[in-house]
Amino acid sequence: MNIVVLKFGGTSVADVPQIKKISYKIKSEVDEGNKVIVVVSAMSGVTNNLIELVNNTSELAPYSEYDVVLSSGEQVTAALLTIALNNLNIKGRSWLGWQVPIITENTYGKAVIEEIKTLNILESFKNNEVAIISGFQGISSENRITTLGRGGSDTSAVAIAAAFSAERCDIYTDVDGVYTTDPRIVKSAKKLESITYEEMLELASQGAKVLQTRSVALGMKYGVNLRVLSSFEDLPGTHILKEGSYMEKSEISGIAHSLNEAKVTLSGVPDKPGQAAQIFSALADLSINVDMIVQSSSINEGSTDITFTIPETDLKLAERTIKKTQEKIGFKKFISETNVVKISVVGNAMRTQSGVAKTMFETLAKNQINIHVISTSEIKISVLISSDYYELAMRSLHSAFGLDA
Amino acid sequence: MNIVVLKFGGTSVADVPQIKKISYKIKSEVDEGNKVIVVVSAMSGVTNNLIELVNNTSELAPYSEYDVVLSSGEQVTAALLTIALNNLNIKGRSWLGWQVPIITENTYGKAVIEEIKTLNILESFKNNEVAIISGFQGISSENRITTLGRGGSDTSAVAIAAAFSAERCDIYTDVDGVYTTDPRIVKSAKKLESITYEEMLELASQGAKVLQTRSVALGMKYGVNLRVLSSFEDLPGTHILKEGSYMEKSEISGIAHSLNEAKVTLSGVPDKPGQAAQIFSALADLSINVDMIVQSSSINEGSTDITFTIPETDLKLAERTIKKTQEKIGFKKFISETNVVKISVVGNAMRTQSGVAKTMFETLAKNQINIHVISTSEIKISVLISSDYYELAMRSLHSAFGLDA
Repeated sequence: MNIVVLKFGGTSVADVPQIKKISYKIKSEVDEGNKVIVVVSAMSGVTNNLIELVNNTSELAPYSEYDVVLSSGEQVTAALLTIALNNLNIKGRSWLGWQVPIITENTYGKAVIEEIKTLNILESFKNNEVAIISGFQGISSENRITTLGRGGSDTSAVAIAAAFSAERCDIYTDVDGVYTTDPRIVKSAKKLESITYEEMLELASQGAKVLQTRSVALGMKYGVNLRVLSSFEDLPGTHILKEGSYMEKSEISGIAHSLNEAKVTLSGVPDKPGQAAQIFSALADLSINVDMIVQSSSINEGSTDITFTIPETDLKLAERTIKKTQEKIGFKKFISETNVVKISVVGNAMRTQSGVAKTMFETLAKNQINIHVISTSEIKISVLISSDYYELAMRSLHSAFGLDA
Repeated sequence: MNIVVLKFGGTSVADVPQIKKISYKIKSEVDEGNKVIVVVSAMSGVTNNLIELVNNTSELAPYSEYDVVLSSGEQVTAALLTIALNNLNIKGRSWLGWQVPIITENTYGKAVIEEIKTLNILESFKNNEVAIISGFQGISSENRITTLGRGGSDTSAVAIAAAFSAERCDIYTDVDGVYTTDPRIVKSAKKLESITYEEMLELASQGAKVLQTRSVALGMKYGVNLRVLSSFEDLPGTHILKEGSYMEKSEISGIAHSLNEAKVTLSGVPDKPGQAAQIFSALADLSINVDMIVQSSSINEGSTDITFTIPETDLKLAERTIKKTQEKIGFKKFISETNVVKISVVGNAMRTQSGVAKTMFETLAKNQINIHVISTSEIKISVLISSDYYELAMRSLHSAFGLDA
């Protein structure tokens, strides 16, 4: 049984004509004899409208109710697409998260998938039905609706592909693949025919915005055969591969950026064991993702500065939480800055080639761009710079690493 | 344990400010020590938008998917209201139809409630939680979402009040009670302090539009203590009572009208047993509600005319169905008319007073209004007239029965 998973994002199901259009794409997969599972996002704009409704009602909405509101978007799309397929004489039915069921932890707002039960949908395949699943949502052990966090439909699709051992998982979106960098900023950006999971992970988490990071990590873990494709043009897209299939490549894959960062510096932290743990466990308790962390060596005797970055949206919450523990931690000043952008150079090249860091820092220096924070991984170097210079930085790095060619 | 059920219709939860407003009303019930169940409709306009989305996608949408789309409206309202209550430090949670659960038959689009399980919500009362239930929806034995038909939230509320043996069921709406007739048409219409279930049933089914007919029938069956109140003004509303509590009253309660009627005449039906059964069982199979039925005595030997009314929206479907069986039934002509309105005079008076019919027909005659069809019940007389005259008919009847005073 050839199971294929097709995922359509918000712009791919933006309105009824668009929903009808993709119903033909699904029909062609059915006509080829595949068992088809479709995963859909909310129609574009819908999720933002729902968030606005929640925020207007209360600034402190419980996530369990927030999820009930937000999940309605994907619910509507799944049913509408099923209706459109019915119109083409294709049998199918919509499946909400709780109907599949897609079982998650009880962490509302950004739930983690625990298990996907395949029995019900496998049963429906016997009746030659297409399964149209609402992305982004699941059900908790408390029998309540959960959502997987922003962009969670990608995660739904990849998790479903893994659970059903799908032949492939095609992510249809409003871009036609993964680029060496953001084409809106760097005109010479080029589409990558293929990319490794590891590189994709760095690009996605660094703000390439093509796929939700979690979905890439999940795809890597389960070896899902993943493609990113345009739902507007009939083009090959970008294939995301396991590293093994990709030995020869040793280049920089791309330049990523992430705009919504906030930099926090705690100055005068007593230089003794356990201080960092206290700070970051307080943030972890609130599910605030801390990204770059730098601790400078003691300048004044017995105290140090700790700098880190978090999503800009979490800054207020982080500030409130950290200031509450000021006495306990003993830092002197809480300094934050939001006018910063993270730029990353990503590629397997870094594993085998030296000199990537050198080229990066030299290029930035040549353009008079000051570096606030540096962090590195096996296949990535990231720098935090002033947001005034991020477009210049991206263009010059794209060129310096030979990606313009 | 004093359980009260409060139901808020679409205009009562029209937008976020309105939702916040009713959260205070709910708070006052909680503060009085009641266990509170709230039933909500979709925010006004939302259901119509969702229906439009479905209709734009396909004219022949399966009802099972239609229900998935439509139920999202009440889902959003329930969660938003819960969030607003949380903001007032009132504990509560939203309950979707499948979570309560409200178990219905598998007839999608207009499902009938089979059973409401009270266990989960009774359990939540132990934590002093308010239960905010999405109206209009349930779950079928196939584990799929059902809806109860237009205006079904009233039915949800009354059924819930019955299942929980609630002390009262308050229906908050955009009118402040039940009137002797439509105040938009007859200026001298007056609010009724109380009305019997039987009268209310006739007024609602005849188009008084204050409560869904099914909800009134259900309330009568289970003896629910029902009130209709304005969510905009702090006024006493109309109390709906069992007949026993109401012995002394012997007046006409009101004049109702129903605009969306179609009259169908089948001429030349063979005058032999079983013909009517064939016609009306075909319509019943499609869940088309037939209202007035008149069979004239044979004019031509061996054949007769059958006239009946159905909702205008079902006319096309009825015509298609009946014409399919033309050979079997043997009628000669299918004649339909939509330019008709049903006017009803309703009141317990009819049980004890003679002359109601006489006054009604004389009043219409005096105004040169021709009667197409007449039908009567124990507490109602209805006539079908040309829609050109319905306002005139209502005003003159309202006056003739002394309701202006």
